[in-house]
Amino acid sequence: MKQDGDSHLAIVGAGLVGSLLALVLANRGHRITVYERRPDPRIVGDAAGRSINLALSERGWRALEMAGAMEAVQRIAMPVKARCMHDHQGTLTYQPYGLPGKGRFGNDECIYSVARGPLNRILLEEAEATGRVEVKFAHRLEDFEAGANEVKLTFADGQTCLHDRVFGTDGAFSAVRTRMTRTDRFDFSQSYLEHGYKEVAMPPAENGGFAIDPEALHIWPRGHFMLMALPNPDRTFTCTLFAPYEGDDSFAGIPDAGSARNYFERHFPDVLPFLPDFDAEWDQNPTSSLVMTRCNPWNHGDRVVLLGDAAHAIVPFYGQGMNSGFEDVRVLADMLDRFDGRPSGDQWARLMSDFSRDRKPNGDAIGDLALRNFIEMRDSTGDARFLLRKRIERRLTDRFPDRWTPLYSMVTFSHTPYSEAMSIGRIQDGIMEEVMDRDDIEDCWDSDEVAEHALRLAAERLPIITA
Amino acid sequence: MKQDGDSHLAIVGAGLVGSLLALVLANRGHRITVYERRPDPRIVGDAAGRSINLALSERGWRALEMAGAMEAVQRIAMPVKARCMHDHQGTLTYQPYGLPGKGRFGNDECIYSVARGPLNRILLEEAEATGRVEVKFAHRLEDFEAGANEVKLTFADGQTCLHDRVFGTDGAFSAVRTRMTRTDRFDFSQSYLEHGYKEVAMPPAENGGFAIDPEALHIWPRGHFMLMALPNPDRTFTCTLFAPYEGDDSFAGIPDAGSARNYFERHFPDVLPFLPDFDAEWDQNPTSSLVMTRCNPWNHGDRVVLLGDAAHAIVPFYGQGMNSGFEDVRVLADMLDRFDGRPSGDQWARLMSDFSRDRKPNGDAIGDLALRNFIEMRDSTGDARFLLRKRIERRLTDRFPDRWTPLYSMVTFSHTPYSEAMSIGRIQDGIMEEVMDRDDIEDCWDSDEVAEHALRLAAERLPIITA
Repeated sequence: MKQDGDSHLAIVGAGLVGSLLALVLANRGHRITVYERRPDPRIVGDAAGRSINLALSERGWRALEMAGAMEAVQRIAMPVKARCMHDHQGTLTYQPYGLPGKGRFGNDECIYSVARGPLNRILLEEAEATGRVEVKFAHRLEDFEAGANEVKLTFADGQTCLHDRVFGTDGAFSAVRTRMTRTDRFDFSQSYLEHGYKEVAMPPAENGGFAIDPEALHIWPRGHFMLMALPNPDRTFTCTLFAPYEGDDSFAGIPDAGSARNYFERHFPDVLPFLPDFDAEWDQNPTSSLVMTRCNPWNHGDRVVLLGDAAHAIVPFYGQGMNSGFEDVRVLADMLDRFDGRPSGDQWARLMSDFSRDRKPNGDAIGDLALRNFIEMRDSTGDARFLLRKRIERRLTDRFPDRWTPLYSMVTFSHTPYSEAMSIGRIQDGIMEEVMDRDDIEDCWDSDEVAEHALRLAAERLPIITA
Repeated sequence: MKQDGDSHLAIVGAGLVGSLLALVLANRGHRITVYERRPDPRIVGDAAGRSINLALSERGWRALEMAGAMEAVQRIAMPVKARCMHDHQGTLTYQPYGLPGKGRFGNDECIYSVARGPLNRILLEEAEATGRVEVKFAHRLEDFEAGANEVKLTFADGQTCLHDRVFGTDGAFSAVRTRMTRTDRFDFSQSYLEHGYKEVAMPPAENGGFAIDPEALHIWPRGHFMLMALPNPDRTFTCTLFAPYEGDDSFAGIPDAGSARNYFERHFPDVLPFLPDFDAEWDQNPTSSLVMTRCNPWNHGDRVVLLGDAAHAIVPFYGQGMNSGFEDVRVLADMLDRFDGRPSGDQWARLMSDFSRDRKPNGDAIGDLALRNFIEMRDSTGDARFLLRKRIERRLTDRFPDRWTPLYSMVTFSHTPYSEAMSIGRIQDGIMEEVMDRDDIEDCWDSDEVAEHALRLAAERLPIITA
């Protein structure tokens, strides 16, 4: 007979969120088996076709710190300090992401570019090093059945295993969630953008250094499509074209490298000189789709719960996909720690439904924000009124950091729950609309009067931030 | 080598829509195999646990007429002429559904109650009687694979079959659609109401007749919950309680027959005397959920297409679930008839995507309307302002049937596409809001001035109806 708290847990999916969760649970004394569909990347190399660089920011760092993995990850993380916009003429406009000196490591607030493969390996190895985590690769989940006392997992090869609780961290196309979709009263949606994306690698310059500024995320905003570039530790950049599948300026109009090269010449002329292998890259890389998923609840009774993309796959435009998944793990760990990390059966039951109820609105919010940021990135970043608003907000937050935090900063550099950040952002939108509607705004945008106007409205309308 | 047009078609799902589609395709000379998960209901009896009576209205009749099945169905259809509302005191208010003498059969416009089992049998038998339809029962689809020249169907027992085209008519939990959900860029959502339902049978009265008026659909509207009763040919009624799963007045509060009886005594006192078997019925019948599904596109390339609930499962509150599915079949048949019923391969390809594009907005619209009608049925039907609006509209449509058709009539008695009906309904809402906002409306609601006011706005704002 097992004792309460002496449970054998299963995690389905050994990606970023699953590996971090394994580490966090093991740190609390649990024994965990992690099942992963793919073969061990340490043997076969990283899976192809997945975006290789990710934006790590404050929510992610806090979870890594709690897991004891922060220092190891710091060694592979590249600071990205600003958004750098490229217009048609190749003129650059820089927008720093955060405040000077307010960063986690005593540096300026910034985001970090990390490569998926090395990060995943660090987390897996730290988890295995606890001695309480066993990772079984090449195990494809086929089905689960939750009984009164345990969950039976069935794998594609017919093998079955019993576990006390199961955590589904198997990504946007989660097998755990697919099984939950067949249960009564489980809400689910998957919706694809009309846009797809295609990556083109930018090699290092002839002198071996980065071809373009490595401390920036580069954007070529062009209305309903855009090009982005993020640096990698090997001094390459990954350039990603986001464009509609059909219609004007779409992938349908650039079926081969020749037509794509013309398209780049027309829309992104300053980047082509840095893409010597453009034609080969274009021909060999796929055009991939972008999906958002939602579901409710995130738990299946008191035995199974989803975290990360399995619960809330989002589009990549806020750089919060991994961070929101890591925050799921941190929030779950905080809930566990109310019971010294080892809840009883009844406490587990309560915890699973509480976790779903508390986190679901935040998953929805970051999904909405990420979608909205796509429009901002590809469109408004080229818009004069938008840039003026950004300048006004920047000035407010520089001078009065305790009285005005822009939405981007709340999402990227704070732990304010996403849903609360979104509500505050909506109030700020109203305030900035009023401020921007002043007749003389272009002349007096940096005046004390404008700042006082915005801050007075903020004091009247904004709630006290709780986290 | 097969010739164009000499195709072997498969239908997955031998329910109402699948059977009608088989008949319609066979009438056009096609050979069809229908695969059905369940055993033959003519051998094992009707499937238990499905709502046994359905509302058949004009869209459904038109499809049945086109298929040559109208007369056979007429013999099992019971006219339901009015909505009869029961208040707490047992006072009855009747609202006729349609206009006198304007019905399909020279009668008053009305809806028809039909039982699922007998209707399904009529359609199946007419389809088989063509000699071109083979129905294979107890065939559960597991997977399909669309190739360049055919579709391979795989069944749960491992058997496979090749077909030129496949029609998925396998209902709200469609296996065909579930397979499509795993394909790139296929949007899907399933969402459950917070309400469930439970059926209680009302036997005939002691004299052998109906216990309550059989020419009416009875409603006991009670705000966030309601009771409904629809007549059956065997002189019983099916009473259905729709209530929230949790919270005030919910199923959670009536876990057994005793507490449910109290609930009925409190909320629906006039119905209990006609439910002598209440306790047994309550104990034996399940509480069932209500799901809505949406997907896009409805076709999988040029080989597979969804119709009926498989494409657009809706809630039952507009009585349009079956009618919208039958209309899908009628619209598909109209498209086939542009090619004399037997399109070439290229024509099929075009037809499948055209069908999806044209029908999808109508499936969405009837889904929205059905959800909205739930609120109207359970809530507004007890509201004085709502009833006054209904009286004004009724008077308009009685006197000026060509100038004012209420939304309910457009949906139930016309062939105006659902999406167009919904747009017109929205404009009518605005007009009626203005009319109802007259200070003197309660005194002059039946005046010529009010009628002219509404009709003048209608002439200004409403489009010319196209169908």
